[in-house]
Amino acid sequence: MLDPVLNTANLSRDDRVRESRTRDETDAFNDVPAHVWPRNAKREDDGNISIAGVNLADIAAEYGTPVMVVDEEDFRSRCRDMARAYGAAANVHYASKAFLTTHIARWVNEEGLSLDVASENELLIALAADFPAERITAHGNNKSESFLRRCVTSGVGHLVIDSHLELETLERVAGEEGAVQDVFIRVKPGVEAHTHEFIATSHEDQKFGLSLASGSAFRAAETARNASNVRLSGLHCHVGSQVFDAEGFKLAAARVLGLYARIYNELGLELGYLDLGGGYGIAYTDEEQPLDVDAVAKDLLRAVADKAEELGIAPPEVIVEPGRAIAGPAAVTVYSVGTVKNVHVTDEATRRYIAVDGGMSDNIRTALYGADYDARVINRRVEGTPHATRLVGSHCESGDILINNALWPDDINSDDFIALAATGAYCYSMSSNYNCFGRPAVVSVKDNTVTPMVRRETVEDLLAREVL
Amino acid sequence: MLDPVLNTANLSRDDRVRESRTRDETDAFNDVPAHVWPRNAKREDDGNISIAGVNLADIAAEYGTPVMVVDEEDFRSRCRDMARAYGAAANVHYASKAFLTTHIARWVNEEGLSLDVASENELLIALAADFPAERITAHGNNKSESFLRRCVTSGVGHLVIDSHLELETLERVAGEEGAVQDVFIRVKPGVEAHTHEFIATSHEDQKFGLSLASGSAFRAAETARNASNVRLSGLHCHVGSQVFDAEGFKLAAARVLGLYARIYNELGLELGYLDLGGGYGIAYTDEEQPLDVDAVAKDLLRAVADKAEELGIAPPEVIVEPGRAIAGPAAVTVYSVGTVKNVHVTDEATRRYIAVDGGMSDNIRTALYGADYDARVINRRVEGTPHATRLVGSHCESGDILINNALWPDDINSDDFIALAATGAYCYSMSSNYNCFGRPAVVSVKDNTVTPMVRRETVEDLLAREVL
Repeated sequence: MLDPVLNTANLSRDDRVRESRTRDETDAFNDVPAHVWPRNAKREDDGNISIAGVNLADIAAEYGTPVMVVDEEDFRSRCRDMARAYGAAANVHYASKAFLTTHIARWVNEEGLSLDVASENELLIALAADFPAERITAHGNNKSESFLRRCVTSGVGHLVIDSHLELETLERVAGEEGAVQDVFIRVKPGVEAHTHEFIATSHEDQKFGLSLASGSAFRAAETARNASNVRLSGLHCHVGSQVFDAEGFKLAAARVLGLYARIYNELGLELGYLDLGGGYGIAYTDEEQPLDVDAVAKDLLRAVADKAEELGIAPPEVIVEPGRAIAGPAAVTVYSVGTVKNVHVTDEATRRYIAVDGGMSDNIRTALYGADYDARVINRRVEGTPHATRLVGSHCESGDILINNALWPDDINSDDFIALAATGAYCYSMSSNYNCFGRPAVVSVKDNTVTPMVRRETVEDLLAREVL
Repeated sequence: MLDPVLNTANLSRDDRVRESRTRDETDAFNDVPAHVWPRNAKREDDGNISIAGVNLADIAAEYGTPVMVVDEEDFRSRCRDMARAYGAAANVHYASKAFLTTHIARWVNEEGLSLDVASENELLIALAADFPAERITAHGNNKSESFLRRCVTSGVGHLVIDSHLELETLERVAGEEGAVQDVFIRVKPGVEAHTHEFIATSHEDQKFGLSLASGSAFRAAETARNASNVRLSGLHCHVGSQVFDAEGFKLAAARVLGLYARIYNELGLELGYLDLGGGYGIAYTDEEQPLDVDAVAKDLLRAVADKAEELGIAPPEVIVEPGRAIAGPAAVTVYSVGTVKNVHVTDEATRRYIAVDGGMSDNIRTALYGADYDARVINRRVEGTPHATRLVGSHCESGDILINNALWPDDINSDDFIALAATGAYCYSMSSNYNCFGRPAVVSVKDNTVTPMVRRETVEDLLAREVL
């Protein structure tokens, strides 16, 4: 994936490209691609990039850098898009793991969506934001008894069963609490979506769910049917993340509907829900196109209806679990440019290394998944000549790279700010304190106003858990 | 690197191996490999694994899991081994980035070693532990002016210059503070050690240092010589991390000594120090052997002395910067076993998925670097038949794997605890709150006594920085 070592072929190509670049192409770097950046981002006449009317450079000046800026209306509008596409807001479950704070849980709640949690702490944070428990669904391949009990006692709407052992434990725990817990069964439909292999999750040889092919999922349904304190109300599957091809969803849906029909026919249970998981791909770079929410929803709902008709069953409600597709494009991360170096790579070629004041601690995705990003200078229009560039962080590790190969104007300097777009998902949620860096501040912007969401982490915070 | 998808070839081989396994081989799983585990770890007669006389299961019971257990005497003894091998404790610089808490900074100080910091917060934590500033060396490819100023005002012993811009800024800052700052220049000697490409750092096309070949490093020495508020006292290079071959160090040393001699001959500066960076490889698995500290030190010191003689210069003091080699083997991470699943992989083969109550939040190294680990059941001798096994975490991501391919007895169950060895370096320091998991508790053990170092992170900690 990531190739931080010399890639002469690329460089030479970049070099040739560079020779042929025109003024127009440098100007293109000053654009703000609408399908990658937050919906309310724009390049102002004075050269600044603003979001919801607030210049990012002003936020950097007030809150310091790195700072994550969330376009609240972008986030909310993507919630509404999904709700409209699937016909029922509550059937759209925002996946907390992408990015969860109490502010975000409130936005999701106010837009009427449901919420997926995958740990007891995610549940507790949602509850701290007064998220209605009945619209929460609990996930996890290894839920602790404490987490199961918390789900039952707080009244979460659905709990996605991931193993036979969990089903047994939940039956006991729900019994002890005098409750009946609604559950889905997570099914492995044996479909692997075309995406990065790390985050493809529906083939058989992985940790999640119960096999459709082996009969394990059906046996769990039998167990649930005979249980007193769980009520099976749906089936769940997940074909992968950052998926650009609706066919995987449709194939998985068809297979899981087969099991759904079998449960109806053989066990007499009409479940009601088919949860197709997450995976809507978003555009991280200018070249990519996000999955079309409306088109995919229409396609999927039709496929499910057709298959249900074919199987002679009532069509279930379809649930989807977007996380990245809602949070991802809504936020950008603003960094200060620091050291800029021209590094000799070959006798003919140099690569500009632009270092910013964050890196793999606030965004591990480039190092971990080989991710790519769109970044722009946010405080002015740049004017230089395109040059092979690598955007790196400030960590004491050579793999600390944010953008591996870029072709950027060569006048970016340490007075500039750079923002990476589409950092709303899996950046803050996976952030670390590597090199004892504090985590960035997070603010939201809406209607020309900045609202702090999370304050910057300080060295005092890092020391606070030490037992002296 | 990591291949979480079906690897039938491996499985079939495992399967064949499994058929031929004997009782003796299951027993081998109950061993505690001394070259991987902390020096004071042992399997007790009652089946428990203890460290420094304390059963790990007792620590798990008292502090919960996951919990990181640091063998204090192991850590200190590795400090002493390095100090002895290099002839001067202060020339051994413990690399904070591997694992830094105030306890650890105190141990390093008490053993007389120096300390490397790579961020202002690492410096502040060292100072909070009363680490003598004169034995601190500051690193970083993109030091902020604030960090540079803090180095100068706190009186750090050495500051490793990483760019011409930084040298200029430091000259100004030190002047403003009325100080003269000792500096090293980080040189790219063009040597790439044989290790994982992400963490090889001495080839030219990377963010650190100044090129030897292009003359950039020499020009920095000229600048330093003419500066009033910096004093050049050494050269630094770093060939990579987790290196198992001393030849890379020797080649880099020879090249950098060439520059050292040129600076002496042409600029009249006798620097005094040659800092060869980090990179001592450790054994993560039974099959690996750590780099021999004494043999490599002897070899390196001899090579430097010979080269200096050849160049007609006085041999410099040699500095090394172990982080992983000191902290890595000293700690283990103890997890509770949760869900265990047998997953059908082929018609003939199943893989056991053992899930524990941590994962990529407390140890990203498997996912990020394709790392491998040694793990053992710590509360009893196991007795089952070897079976192809994958150790996974509890995160909502299929790449959340701790050990990809293992062959473990098949009687490990949810009453067991499993500890991963050699987790002292780059686990806690890179840990995240993914899925809102709190970071583990950290305790040290010594002479039958447990001392808490860092308390477990709670959901209240996670919420504390939110601006409500």
